Amino acid sequence: MAGDSLRTGRLGDDRPESVTSFLSSMEADRWIGNADVLVDIAHVMMLERQGIIERQYAATLLSALLPLHRDGLPEEIFDERHEDIHAGIEAYLIESAGMDAGGRLHIGRSRNDEVATCIRIRLRELVLEELGLLAGLRRLLIDTAREHTGTMMPGFTHLQHAQPTTLAHHLMAYEAAFSRDFERFAESLGRIGRSPLGAAAFASTGYPIDRALTAGLLGFERIEENTMDAVAARDVVIEAISDCAILMSTVSRLCEELVLWSSSFVAFVELPDACCSTSSIMPQKKNPDTAEIMRAKAGTVTGALIAALTIVKALPMSYNRDLQELSPHLWKAAFESGRCTRLLCDMLKGARFNKTRMREEAAKGGSTATELADVLVREYGLPFRTAHGIVGRAVRLGRLDLATLDAAAREMAGISLLAAGLDKAGVARALDPEFGISVRKAPGGPAPEAVQASISAAASRLDGDESYVAGRQKAISRANERMIQEAQELIASQQN
Amino acid sequence: MAGDSLRTGRLGDDRPESVTSFLSSMEADRWIGNADVLVDIAHVMMLERQGIIERQYAATLLSALLPLHRDGLPEEIFDERHEDIHAGIEAYLIESAGMDAGGRLHIGRSRNDEVATCIRIRLRELVLEELGLLAGLRRLLIDTAREHTGTMMPGFTHLQHAQPTTLAHHLMAYEAAFSRDFERFAESLGRIGRSPLGAAAFASTGYPIDRALTAGLLGFERIEENTMDAVAARDVVIEAISDCAILMSTVSRLCEELVLWSSSFVAFVELPDACCSTSSIMPQKKNPDTAEIMRAKAGTVTGALIAALTIVKALPMSYNRDLQELSPHLWKAAFESGRCTRLLCDMLKGARFNKTRMREEAAKGGSTATELADVLVREYGLPFRTAHGIVGRAVRLGRLDLATLDAAAREMAGISLLAAGLDKAGVARALDPEFGISVRKAPGGPAPEAVQASISAAASRLDGDESYVAGRQKAISRANERMIQEAQELIASQQN
Amino acid sequence: MAGDSLRTGRLGDDRPESVTSFLSSMEADRWIGNADVLVDIAHVMMLERQGIIERQYAATLLSALLPLHRDGLPEEIFDERHEDIHAGIEAYLIESAGMDAGGRLHIGRSRNDEVATCIRIRLRELVLEELGLLAGLRRLLIDTAREHTGTMMPGFTHLQHAQPTTLAHHLMAYEAAFSRDFERFAESLGRIGRSPLGAAAFASTGYPIDRALTAGLLGFERIEENTMDAVAARDVVIEAISDCAILMSTVSRLCEELVLWSSSFVAFVELPDACCSTSSIMPQKKNPDTAEIMRAKAGTVTGALIAALTIVKALPMSYNRDLQELSPHLWKAAFESGRCTRLLCDMLKGARFNKTRMREEAAKGGSTATELADVLVREYGLPFRTAHGIVGRAVRLGRLDLATLDAAAREMAGISLLAAGLDKAGVARALDPEFGISVRKAPGGPAPEAVQASISAAASRLDGDESYVAGRQKAISRANERMIQEAQELIASQQN
Amino acid sequence: MAGDSLRTGRLGDDRPESVTSFLSSMEADRWIGNADVLVDIAHVMMLERQGIIERQYAATLLSALLPLHRDGLPEEIFDERHEDIHAGIEAYLIESAGMDAGGRLHIGRSRNDEVATCIRIRLRELVLEELGLLAGLRRLLIDTAREHTGTMMPGFTHLQHAQPTTLAHHLMAYEAAFSRDFERFAESLGRIGRSPLGAAAFASTGYPIDRALTAGLLGFERIEENTMDAVAARDVVIEAISDCAILMSTVSRLCEELVLWSSSFVAFVELPDACCSTSSIMPQKKNPDTAEIMRAKAGTVTGALIAALTIVKALPMSYNRDLQELSPHLWKAAFESGRCTRLLCDMLKGARFNKTRMREEAAKGGSTATELADVLVREYGLPFRTAHGIVGRAVRLGRLDLATLDAAAREMAGISLLAAGLDKAGVARALDPEFGISVRKAPGGPAPEAVQASISAAASRLDGDESYVAGRQKAISRANERMIQEAQELIASQQN
Repeated sequence: MAGDSLRTGRLGDDRPESVTSFLSSMEADRWIGNADVLVDIAHVMMLERQGIIERQYAATLLSALLPLHRDGLPEEIFDERHEDIHAGIEAYLIESAGMDAGGRLHIGRSRNDEVATCIRIRLRELVLEELGLLAGLRRLLIDTAREHTGTMMPGFTHLQHAQPTTLAHHLMAYEAAFSRDFERFAESLGRIGRSPLGAAAFASTGYPIDRALTAGLLGFERIEENTMDAVAARDVVIEAISDCAILMSTVSRLCEELVLWSSSFVAFVELPDACCSTSSIMPQKKNPDTAEIMRAKAGTVTGALIAALTIVKALPMSYNRDLQELSPHLWKAAFESGRCTRLLCDMLKGARFNKTRMREEAAKGGSTATELADVLVREYGLPFRTAHGIVGRAVRLGRLDLATLDAAAREMAGISLLAAGLDKAGVARALDPEFGISVRKAPGGPAPEAVQASISAAASRLDGDESYVAGRQKAISRANERMIQEAQELIASQQN
Repeated sequence: MAGDSLRTGRLGDDRPESVTSFLSSMEADRWIGNADVLVDIAHVMMLERQGIIERQYAATLLSALLPLHRDGLPEEIFDERHEDIHAGIEAYLIESAGMDAGGRLHIGRSRNDEVATCIRIRLRELVLEELGLLAGLRRLLIDTAREHTGTMMPGFTHLQHAQPTTLAHHLMAYEAAFSRDFERFAESLGRIGRSPLGAAAFASTGYPIDRALTAGLLGFERIEENTMDAVAARDVVIEAISDCAILMSTVSRLCEELVLWSSSFVAFVELPDACCSTSSIMPQKKNPDTAEIMRAKAGTVTGALIAALTIVKALPMSYNRDLQELSPHLWKAAFESGRCTRLLCDMLKGARFNKTRMREEAAKGGSTATELADVLVREYGLPFRTAHGIVGRAVRLGRLDLATLDAAAREMAGISLLAAGLDKAGVARALDPEFGISVRKAPGGPAPEAVQASISAAASRLDGDESYVAGRQKAISRANERMIQEAQELIASQQN
Repeated sequence: MAGDSLRTGRLGDDRPESVTSFLSSMEADRWIGNADVLVDIAHVMMLERQGIIERQYAATLLSALLPLHRDGLPEEIFDERHEDIHAGIEAYLIESAGMDAGGRLHIGRSRNDEVATCIRIRLRELVLEELGLLAGLRRLLIDTAREHTGTMMPGFTHLQHAQPTTLAHHLMAYEAAFSRDFERFAESLGRIGRSPLGAAAFASTGYPIDRALTAGLLGFERIEENTMDAVAARDVVIEAISDCAILMSTVSRLCEELVLWSSSFVAFVELPDACCSTSSIMPQKKNPDTAEIMRAKAGTVTGALIAALTIVKALPMSYNRDLQELSPHLWKAAFESGRCTRLLCDMLKGARFNKTRMREEAAKGGSTATELADVLVREYGLPFRTAHGIVGRAVRLGRLDLATLDAAAREMAGISLLAAGLDKAGVARALDPEFGISVRKAPGGPAPEAVQASISAAASRLDGDESYVAGRQKAISRANERMIQEAQELIASQQN
Repeated sequence: MAGDSLRTGRLGDDRPESVTSFLSSMEADRWIGNADVLVDIAHVMMLERQGIIERQYAATLLSALLPLHRDGLPEEIFDERHEDIHAGIEAYLIESAGMDAGGRLHIGRSRNDEVATCIRIRLRELVLEELGLLAGLRRLLIDTAREHTGTMMPGFTHLQHAQPTTLAHHLMAYEAAFSRDFERFAESLGRIGRSPLGAAAFASTGYPIDRALTAGLLGFERIEENTMDAVAARDVVIEAISDCAILMSTVSRLCEELVLWSSSFVAFVELPDACCSTSSIMPQKKNPDTAEIMRAKAGTVTGALIAALTIVKALPMSYNRDLQELSPHLWKAAFESGRCTRLLCDMLKGARFNKTRMREEAAKGGSTATELADVLVREYGLPFRTAHGIVGRAVRLGRLDLATLDAAAREMAGISLLAAGLDKAGVARALDPEFGISVRKAPGGPAPEAVQASISAAASRLDGDESYVAGRQKAISRANERMIQEAQELIASQQN
């Protein structure tokens, strides 16, 4: 292939390699190579239907493009001599299909709308993939929770034993958070699904193009109308990175818990060997490396978000080359989020929970003291703040037994609980974690029936969400297949 | 008021002022003071309806709360002796309504669900306000665009003259971007509108509370079900800050353009005196300070986003005090975004565009060269890449006239444009910016009829959006009024 | 006071309050009010010495300025009618000393160099303060370590028990990290200590000013020479915020450990009541709130850093109003870092370490397995990797006793350790944590004599560092006092 | 090569590829491969000298290591089966030199201290390289400035014409900023130059290692003493990324100016073709792509900094696998900063400044109004604020001529400048930009003699800085060569 075909007219082409590779986006463009072929096919078919190029040129171009779609892009297209994948493909087509056809590919468009369209196609794919992964993760959490509605464990605030709960309740907290991640990604599809194609450099073109046609061929729901906005804006990209960062922030919290729970102190869980490493020096070690790196990835994705926001800040209209530097951050964020979601499933699937340890700790650390205060309120008519003070003082005095409570009550509120009828059995029942959990049956609470209701509701929402993802994916592959078929028909019509 | 009523039982209360003020969230809690009163009212009414407290205590509490709702919180409540506004209000109620009533306020709840609920109430208010401001900004852009569909100006890529366009087209690019900001904020309302109340510390409570009832009283659409998630998650807060940061990134781009356009070099616009400053030393200066500071605010809001993501990273379940440090970043982001949206309107309203300068520059910098290449394609049958090369070479040779073009064509493609029939009139027409704009009539393009169509569509979308905001706001104030009325009835019923 | 004296000539002064408060930096300028008075005094004295203003005007101005220096700025100066503190003070002087004197204050300078100078003066103060606080923290760590060279505890990697160490060794790790923070702040003083004054708007001035003179009066070491750079650059500010963020990242690690160590699981430490809170609902709770909020502050300071970097990005020369938005992030970062350093000292001072628990855990989790592998290497001549494999296998088989080790050695390396002479006593000694620690006496290791050597070295470095801080502070206050005295002499000379 | 030799004892080795590649740091470890070989050599030599391993094993190991040092690492070492480069090299040595020698490589160390040492070695190299590049950039700026002390141009504040200055003055502002970047990087070397080797996992080792010896062999200045700190801290890494981010923020400002200056409006500079691109659609375009991407890289490096700070936040002692995720951000930041510094030189070297345009604009936009106000102060005795007001009003009235000034003076201050003797010549002289520049001769100001003095001082500082870099580089390569030679001698001694 010859030198950079775009430069030949206007500029000299004697760039040092350092500049060429600095300006080239080829490495990152691997993410959009296949999308670009689809865009080229759609554009050529539209040009032909609108009578902008003759059928023979369209057929020649499509004959060269379909194999790229079927077999992938040959490595030579990614040569950094080309500034980007768009120039690479055009140069390849000019060489393989001749200037008469290849030189017509770029009629009525620019790399500005081309890349914006490629990004949205690929991003749509990645978001749908992430939605599928999130659905899988939620399914796993729901299924695991189903087995553990009776698995007692301590709940924590401030990393202190707070009140007893169940593993099911705890896991469903994450299911809820990941459902909101699902919602955010799903809502973003509405914005991603608008085609920038036809915006050209930013002012559209004088050719009688049909933007709705290419949008339909590529499975977009509608066009991103204003042509300057269509090439210059990247808020949709930043939104996607932000959705990844928010997701990863929840992932990092779950990973932190897995690290804590697999520590010798807590010992609530044993992670699968496959997700762990040992030490090069300490032979006894089994370290939760996968959880740690995943936790760190939250930092990496946050970094990508900040890079994106900083790059776009204060850029005037319309396209600026700075935007090229943005895309790698998108791919990085989406890639890391995707694989962390997947590995998190694997890690949770292989995790063995230690019910004995969990039950053992459930009642420790005074974690049923709240229930005790509530009993004082309910059964002895104390104001809550008074009951809270009494129990707090008893803890400070060192014991939650009848005598200490009575002493505390006399000190704090001038009343005798003994006299009021409190006895050992009453204290014991209030301090029993099973009792504490069983009464917490408000919607979303830890009582087994409440959790079961949550599980049912979550499972049914998830069914709907999975259908939604499947439906969107099917619609896009159908549009895709239809376009390829029409392209083949056009080629065939010309060969006859 | 006495010391910190929460601590009296469990801990000593001899904290140095430095710690007290470090731990206190009072300053930031000013943002949620009014919301907290609403939450208290709803909670008390629910406790009474569920028979958890007696009507007399409910009436006493509501009698003390309604004046706070009507008149605002007295300054003493914000004393930093209290850890936060929740403790401040409770202490106030205990003092003013007595321990018997005041000490019952906190039955079946915790500050964890209380603050989460307050944040959502206030955030809902701020998001609705921002939606209103964005609608106003879009209306202004649409109205201004309507006046300028014929106002020619150069369009830029890479800050270089690229192709002619119109001011209307340019402004509508921002309208489109702000519409997406509107969408994002509107979609977030679905998540914000779920009530955490009743989650208590994270495990709900053993009292027979009715979470749906308080949610309804407070105008929420439903409850945030899982009680651990309800107090521990902050993704909804981070999402809101992220939406602000994305909005501000677009604001910073428009401000950058206003700074550029008001520079002596460009002189496309004169900003209103009220938004500018002069220099303390250079008497001639009129500086676009408002636009500059607004541009910088994008950095401030990005900083808030990063702070939020970093704070939440790797926090284990459920509530951790770290979350207290998060809220000020939310209020900061929302406050700055809101006032920037408002001031941007003011600044644009007062801006005087210099049509003469804009027209003068519209055709400069070879910005019609694309059209010339297109003419070579359309009328002389050249492949686009060849035509692009010829015009590029002519630019390099220094002139876009007939002779130079012909020389370039001979050099680059071995053909004579003269021989093919190109004449001076043909070149002149191709280089006329009016012509270039008039043919760009694809949807979203700069041709006046295309922009007018965009304007109509945008205006009608905006009508819908404004109704949506008004509807949401009305629904919330109705719920609010209904609750207050019921509270008054409860008090009255008791007084009889 | 009248309206904004700067605007009267050039611009209308009918700004709405929303703009006025948006443009005003008054709130943040409270940080530099006192510095600004010093700058004004130095500037006036220089103007007089250079013969630029007459002595009578200088005396009048100084007579008005000295009380501001002595008593602080009156509240009226902070009225947001003034764009900033500089305008506020000038307006105050014009009013109180008359236009003839007050109107001469701003000769040969601009707010651009004025604010840059004020920032450096205040920042120098804050950095010196932070150095003092860091010295105090290091002193506390050293002193605490001195008491705990024999306090055994488990060391962790990946939050897993790794090898035994001592509390002294652990604390000295933080001392080392904070020493590097000290170094960074101290090195930054070299850059902070250069005076921008005299740069005026950016091009200096035509008056025969003496920049070295004002620099000397204000205690600067030299001038920031290039006048455009002097007003436009903020890298010194960003560096300071970055130094704070790095410091806070170490603080957040120590706080994470305090949260972990004070959890029921670990129970290595009890934090002072004053730094803890209880729960509004759970009466038993004692939460490590100060440590948690401090941990979160690392996020806040990171946010400030990002805001600063984003604001400065891509600003053209020289001064832009965006820079005004930068300063509050500096003050925030410095303020939070300062008070966290101080509170960290308080918290550590009051912490009670539970030596029994620490000793109990020191040998758990197979944390002496490395030493066992080392014994196999040293005494039985095995390659380390083989010994590591044998011990690892024994751990996997469940026990580190003689029989299991022998079985593992036969399986992994085909050798019998029993036959080679290993006996129970040998295994027991290798697994004894005291022994493991005692042999780790390389410099910086945990053996008591190694830690004692580290402590001595650290204490002596700290002595030097404290002298350095004291020396710098003294030099600055001397310059300050000298200037005030000369100003008084000038006034007196005029009164005679 | 066999499977993962580290895991064989303790853990199963049946990891799915997705986990293996997730945990592997191999791609990033390419940055430290060569450093790791040096560390291995130093460690082996120390083990032998201390009598920890026998000479024969040392000779065998060194014989295998020296070729890796000379020829680079074979590709098989980077196989992702190994968790990292350290495991890869060890496995390679065990295979090629046998378990007896190879299995002894890891005596008395861990990957924790190994990687920390490798990072510092490589970082030291990169910082020295960056120092060299910065010196080159400063040299170029100084040399270019030398040619342009008389090249007048407008200086800007708020992107508005402010006061005339010279290109030399403007360029030297950047030289000053880059000098501070140089200082920061140079100062960081003091911290980077401390060897963590010998810290092992974090508790050092029971073997009688000599940490000072390995430090010396590797060219370190001293050891990083506390062994827990030595493996756990990454503040030195974050500092380096921060230094890069601060540098890039200045780079982005210069690039912004190059983008502005090469726009058609300003036309102060033509950038070299090699650094520009054209458009795929607009044939006339010459876009400043290199400057734009470089500007965007500031965002990328800021993102790396945030990722690093977020990753490290709240990690407990000592090593956590999260730290592995940190290093790629360091390499990315250093790589991008390095090539941007280099390309900036290339771009500036090829830039052609348009002196005519610059001179033309120098006096525009009222940029000499300050001088005019100063003349009213100096020659007519007005207070500066009064003179400022008069000139400001004249600008508002539209002209800076004698009559308007007089009218303004009468309106603003009730005085007649005509009566006071101001005449047309006086006004004209004050408004002459040459005059304005010539009087600004304070140190660091734009007057040619002031700039020349600055240039001389800067050049002489730069000479010193260059010697410093050369000296440091030489010291390190000498240590390196000495070590290799001693290794060869050891091998030879064994062969005899």
